[in-house]
Amino acid sequence: MPVPALLRVLKGERLASPPIWIMRQAGRYLPEYRELRKRAKNFLDFCYSPALATEAVMQPLRRFPLDAAILFSDILVIPDALGRVVDFVEGEGPRLAPLMDEEHWRFDDPQRALQRLAPVYEAVERIKRGLDKSAALIGFCGGPWTVATYMLQGEGGDKERSRRVSYQRPHDVDALLALLAEMSAQHLAKQVEAGADCVQIFESWAEGLPEPLFRRLIIEPTKLMVSRLRALGVRAPIIGFPRGAGPMITAYAHETGVNALGVDTQTPAVFARGVAPPGMALQGNLDPQLLVVGGDALEKGVAEVLASFASGPHIFNLGHGITPDATPENVARLVDLVKAGS
Amino acid sequence: MPVPALLRVLKGERLASPPIWIMRQAGRYLPEYRELRKRAKNFLDFCYSPALATEAVMQPLRRFPLDAAILFSDILVIPDALGRVVDFVEGEGPRLAPLMDEEHWRFDDPQRALQRLAPVYEAVERIKRGLDKSAALIGFCGGPWTVATYMLQGEGGDKERSRRVSYQRPHDVDALLALLAEMSAQHLAKQVEAGADCVQIFESWAEGLPEPLFRRLIIEPTKLMVSRLRALGVRAPIIGFPRGAGPMITAYAHETGVNALGVDTQTPAVFARGVAPPGMALQGNLDPQLLVVGGDALEKGVAEVLASFASGPHIFNLGHGITPDATPENVARLVDLVKAGS
Repeated sequence: MPVPALLRVLKGERLASPPIWIMRQAGRYLPEYRELRKRAKNFLDFCYSPALATEAVMQPLRRFPLDAAILFSDILVIPDALGRVVDFVEGEGPRLAPLMDEEHWRFDDPQRALQRLAPVYEAVERIKRGLDKSAALIGFCGGPWTVATYMLQGEGGDKERSRRVSYQRPHDVDALLALLAEMSAQHLAKQVEAGADCVQIFESWAEGLPEPLFRRLIIEPTKLMVSRLRALGVRAPIIGFPRGAGPMITAYAHETGVNALGVDTQTPAVFARGVAPPGMALQGNLDPQLLVVGGDALEKGVAEVLASFASGPHIFNLGHGITPDATPENVARLVDLVKAGS
Repeated sequence: MPVPALLRVLKGERLASPPIWIMRQAGRYLPEYRELRKRAKNFLDFCYSPALATEAVMQPLRRFPLDAAILFSDILVIPDALGRVVDFVEGEGPRLAPLMDEEHWRFDDPQRALQRLAPVYEAVERIKRGLDKSAALIGFCGGPWTVATYMLQGEGGDKERSRRVSYQRPHDVDALLALLAEMSAQHLAKQVEAGADCVQIFESWAEGLPEPLFRRLIIEPTKLMVSRLRALGVRAPIIGFPRGAGPMITAYAHETGVNALGVDTQTPAVFARGVAPPGMALQGNLDPQLLVVGGDALEKGVAEVLASFASGPHIFNLGHGITPDATPENVARLVDLVKAGS
């Protein structure tokens, strides 16, 4: 049985035509997704329905010859399972009760929390059964710091309050990060057991941290998560995506134990290639705005990304998630351009 | 007459005890500033009053032995002078009529626009007269791209819409950036003529741009601004502060013509030192949250910044502006710690 192109690249192979998938490829830019989404009132209910989540995953694969499917879920299922109240406010994003306002931080038992996530693993099994063998199935979780910032300040936006709490309550924050690292490792292990071929850690909020904090809040917990995942016997490749980490991607790529590096929009491929361990697969990094803009700008942007990553193993992707105002036509054009090569 | 320490460092000298100033040192964390601010209803009226602006500048210098004063003004005086309506909404930040919604972009005559900024230069003259000779006087403007993003999308927040317009209307955006570069060069030249010893370009929104856009929207306009400033006969040192530029600070430091590099909170000093031209002064980069947190965390943070920048010319500063919830006591402690050395 042929190995999916994405997995070959993750093992260090350089392919003339790189495999491609798109962060948030199952999402609001697709009319059929917007239609499907109406079938659950609450966003987490949607994520926890194996049937709806599976259908969402399959939609983009029916339209485009993508090289991977990615589980449809959310990074905040972990705090939800731990007993924190997670609300998704339409058009505003998630809202949680901010931990930083509470004197004592208490969470539900991690093992019971994990049992609550059973529908996620059932979705992975269903997706795997329906997936063409040439496509890889990607599992995922949030980076411990990214998930912690939502839990600490109760919402997205600037992360200044989370950073402040990490100075003010270092022991509490470090304990939270260790808990999230352990829970996330077990969550990923279950996804792999259910059929995921590889996993991605979305450290979406890696920006703005002074080096000592970056090491404490991102590198150490990620290293812990990766080593726990390996201790659980999981051998699947891990893509780390520390968005906004800037020059700290060097330490992230070398010290956390991830096998591949997601490169954000603003990081030049040549820089990432120069600082990552030799032979490490890089994933990225087309500007998502080009899927709104289209035309010559899209064509030029794709050619630039292909050329700039060409010297080593490359998985084509955006540098950040696709936006709801991108058009399916531009996505189709993107996939054609990548499949045709530069 | 002794040369102010800040200017010595800008010329490449390494001082055992680095000079210090603080971005937004005249600001809302000071009770006397909050009191003074009440004397003008509109924020731009406050900026355009030479008496009020001068008093605001002097307030932190009375409290702390800082090595520099910085003009009190705003980067949006340029669009205001060009005839765009600029409103400052209390607690929300500036609001402008978004250029991206307009089919034709028209601006008032640049020479007349510059005349409208006469009160700014009068403030510089007043400040210079009242300033101790050991302190340097810093003039400033916004980077062309940062100012353009406010003009394009009408507000702060994410810069995705500005990036999109820069793909969709490349000629219009490039012409706007060239206009802003020229206006800003003349604005800085007038400040130096009025008494500023050096200037800083605040490119506060340098993040998130793919390399080709970073070159087009930040490096090229800044290079143009710097060369125009030199063509106007200005020899004062220029500090460039491309906040969030990540690995692109290398190109920024080498190609724009700036004399010193402002380093943001997340960029390790060792990285900046390694990629900047040899002997270039670096400015930064204490986490502003430490002036809220105080205590041991502040002391440790200051020691880390001092040690990490010690190998070359260093101006102590924050990695981003001081926040309104910082305390004057923590600022006093910071200045003491820096003056005492690590």
